[in-house]
Amino acid sequence: MTASFAVTDRTRMRRRPGRATYDRELVHSILDESLIASVAVSIDGQPHVQPMIHVRDGDGLILHGNANNRLLSHIAGGAEACINVALVDALVLARQITNHTMHYRSATVYGRGSEVEDEGEKQRLMNIVFDHLVKTDRYRHLPTLPEGYLKGMLVVLVPIEEAVGKVNSAVPTDDGPEGIWSGLVPVRVQRLDPLADERTQAEAAELGAPTVPPPTA
Amino acid sequence: MTASFAVTDRTRMRRRPGRATYDRELVHSILDESLIASVAVSIDGQPHVQPMIHVRDGDGLILHGNANNRLLSHIAGGAEACINVALVDALVLARQITNHTMHYRSATVYGRGSEVEDEGEKQRLMNIVFDHLVKTDRYRHLPTLPEGYLKGMLVVLVPIEEAVGKVNSAVPTDDGPEGIWSGLVPVRVQRLDPLADERTQAEAAELGAPTVPPPTA
Repeated sequence: MTASFAVTDRTRMRRRPGRATYDRELVHSILDESLIASVAVSIDGQPHVQPMIHVRDGDGLILHGNANNRLLSHIAGGAEACINVALVDALVLARQITNHTMHYRSATVYGRGSEVEDEGEKQRLMNIVFDHLVKTDRYRHLPTLPEGYLKGMLVVLVPIEEAVGKVNSAVPTDDGPEGIWSGLVPVRVQRLDPLADERTQAEAAELGAPTVPPPTA
Repeated sequence: MTASFAVTDRTRMRRRPGRATYDRELVHSILDESLIASVAVSIDGQPHVQPMIHVRDGDGLILHGNANNRLLSHIAGGAEACINVALVDALVLARQITNHTMHYRSATVYGRGSEVEDEGEKQRLMNIVFDHLVKTDRYRHLPTLPEGYLKGMLVVLVPIEEAVGKVNSAVPTDDGPEGIWSGLVPVRVQRLDPLADERTQAEAAELGAPTVPPPTA
């Protein structure tokens, strides 16, 4: 496994090449940080893009959904996908209008996915999805999946081989006038304190603390 | 202007139709809340998706970028676009694995855009973009745009006519076991306190408070 992705015609950044990165670890970290990705396909020449949960397993992206999901079925059937994740880190306020920008980290993956058909492998991948999103050992305390549940679920693995990141973290300095505030307004995606549902609240009053506590933020 | 979008073949939600909304005001509010959108086009049958700043002007979405931006040029040239905005509101932790989900609001617009060529109209639209993102009266205190700057910028307006929203805010109740915490982990995109750059810090020490202050969060 090389440390960098090879540059292809689709991943070459013509404008602002200084913002491009082909560093595998950095691209992975951008993919891992976002809760959702934008997944695009072309169907009969028509673009479609949908937000989906994407979770990385090594050098592959796990997508899942109902077997009737049209976009995902298309990818499972071998269609090219383009998957993007974008994280806004800050608004950049400069002293010239033209220097206003955003700090961001973005990652784009091009590729053809394949359907995962083996039930054991589907289960393994769905465990990874669950663990990544929930980040507790919750899974093993929950009832197992109903018999046959995974059969109705489409699990697709897209290789992360043709990929590029784009990062803007530059601090602009310009010749704009004195007396104007310039700097950054940081933007963060935050998980707030968990909110127990009614049943959990009732049980807490009755039974005390739950055996499986809420995830810590 | 009708209160609802007409349902088309592309915007009909086959799976979980209860999550679909065609309410114009609600779809607008989802579009307005996100700082960026995912803009997809199909070029020679190949899907491409890019994060872009999208700002709404009434029933149109303003996209802008450098005149060399390939994806945007494609849309300016009349290609179909599919534009999606997705806001994650919460992780939903249930007592059955299969009831775990996310609360989200999403909006998708299909349409063909057109390039805005009139310089006055380009200026007006870029002012709207600036105002929407920065939310201060900063613009009028900054030096005007350099002569000819707008010529090198591509401004495209995409009509918001074929559009659909998708909202999940249901609270699952299930027959999962006692003693397991269930509820929501809210997720929020937050603007943190502004961070002054070096020049602003130096001027603050020397001149006092800036004439044009930082935006309030």
